[in-house]
Amino acid sequence: MNVVVKPEFLSRHKERADSVLPKLLDVSLVAASDSMLELHSAMRYAVTNGGKRIRPTLSYATAKALGVPLDAVDVPACAIEMVHAYSLVHDDLPAMDNDDLRRGLPTCHKKFGEAMAILAGDALQALAFTVLSQHQDDRLSPTNKIHMIELLGQASGAAGMAVGQAIDLAAVGKKIPLGQLEEMHRHKTGMLIRASIMISTMIGAGPDADVTARLSRFANDIGLLFQIVDDILDVVSDTATLGKPQGADNALNKPTYPALLGLEGARKHAKMTHEQALEQLEGLDDGFDELRQISTFIIERTY
Amino acid sequence: MNVVVKPEFLSRHKERADSVLPKLLDVSLVAASDSMLELHSAMRYAVTNGGKRIRPTLSYATAKALGVPLDAVDVPACAIEMVHAYSLVHDDLPAMDNDDLRRGLPTCHKKFGEAMAILAGDALQALAFTVLSQHQDDRLSPTNKIHMIELLGQASGAAGMAVGQAIDLAAVGKKIPLGQLEEMHRHKTGMLIRASIMISTMIGAGPDADVTARLSRFANDIGLLFQIVDDILDVVSDTATLGKPQGADNALNKPTYPALLGLEGARKHAKMTHEQALEQLEGLDDGFDELRQISTFIIERTY
Repeated sequence: MNVVVKPEFLSRHKERADSVLPKLLDVSLVAASDSMLELHSAMRYAVTNGGKRIRPTLSYATAKALGVPLDAVDVPACAIEMVHAYSLVHDDLPAMDNDDLRRGLPTCHKKFGEAMAILAGDALQALAFTVLSQHQDDRLSPTNKIHMIELLGQASGAAGMAVGQAIDLAAVGKKIPLGQLEEMHRHKTGMLIRASIMISTMIGAGPDADVTARLSRFANDIGLLFQIVDDILDVVSDTATLGKPQGADNALNKPTYPALLGLEGARKHAKMTHEQALEQLEGLDDGFDELRQISTFIIERTY
Repeated sequence: MNVVVKPEFLSRHKERADSVLPKLLDVSLVAASDSMLELHSAMRYAVTNGGKRIRPTLSYATAKALGVPLDAVDVPACAIEMVHAYSLVHDDLPAMDNDDLRRGLPTCHKKFGEAMAILAGDALQALAFTVLSQHQDDRLSPTNKIHMIELLGQASGAAGMAVGQAIDLAAVGKKIPLGQLEEMHRHKTGMLIRASIMISTMIGAGPDADVTARLSRFANDIGLLFQIVDDILDVVSDTATLGKPQGADNALNKPTYPALLGLEGARKHAKMTHEQALEQLEGLDDGFDELRQISTFIIERTY
């Protein structure tokens, strides 16, 4: 693989999310008794174990593009990250992907047991909606706060992430057509990634309809791109870099882009998706450069 | 056991919830493809399998007491029932209570497999917040809708139901003091039952502070009463009546009121809690009779 130069703002946004998330957890997880502490430890473990914070980073980059102060999206961005974190805990369970390792550390159920991991995931989902509902900010109208909650609910539920994971499980061992693979990813990861971008359009007056529509299409493209690249990295990267077992998708006989299109076919598909993402932002000003660079950074990881 | 005369309104409110829930599911679970259908089937199975609808019934009875039209609480009441339904699906999992039977039918994971049951629970939780956020009604202000979402999040998450279940699991096989048993139930079932009552105070102008405070205390009492009676029935009832294996708590070595106080001690504790519940409503008009009768009906089941 090439050495890929990581844009400085990626680390900056990650650090921002890494500093906001524990504060939100500390405020919310006040234990009334000792017997509540283990669940809270499992929740903290699931959220603060070195995630890349792609979703908050997209929220912050979109805020930057729209001239929205970053602190206005801290809470919604981190609420989405909590949903993402809970989904990883549940996806790793023995009944699902049965993963022992996540980001180089034992998965939540390996450390806290299955029952506690199920509950920690459940409680993290509830917490995401709770922190959103409790978030008080003059720049976020009650109506738009409700829209955010709706967006998060749709992106994570039976028309979003959860059904994507169900399609994924049903597809194990099957050769599915490209359209179905994309449908799976659009639901499993795409909608939450799209939500990360769209919440930043809900602060203050928000952008005009054209920019909102472009951002929505950009979000769809980059969500897919991220997944194609993830599939490619599972083939070409090593376990230490991934922080999870290399070749896990293949071992689980999961449908992936490389399995369907071959490695070079998958790379071509990634390139096309990246170009399409950039096209959505064509003609928009320099403020949108962080979003453009995220797309470029994602695709560069594949070579 | 005595023959207990069931108040007519209990069946009426149950039927109302039974007719609203499938409509909400039908509107929300529109499958874009065949591969989404199994998750949706699992979700429907979890929600429409003959529950007693205690929570919506409490919402309706409270609405009646406050002169609020029942249709104004349909959606919030059924959102709470969805959270309850999801919690049963997850509680029944092998890693948790490992139950094969629920309401006389195979549990969700027995019918759809563990992975699908985990996802169905996850998606039902998301759906509860989604239907609340999408609910449009002139009698519910955006601010109060956000309060409902907050209430539901708190009642179901790391300071509510989920932590109650965690305390429950940690307490298996231990002799815990009465205070800790009550703390467990207050979280595991009490807060969601309280939410069922309190959402009906959020429609329109709502009752004055005194009535709201009385309803909150009544809700706490009746939540506990319900749990004490549930523990007693697990000892004195039979499997056919319960729809789940009789003696399951004992078999799992769970802390219960009868285990802690003896059967007669538990009955006395139930009676005291029932009287305390009724006291909270003292002096309030006939409109509150349904709430009073619910408490009476619950306690009569223990003899």
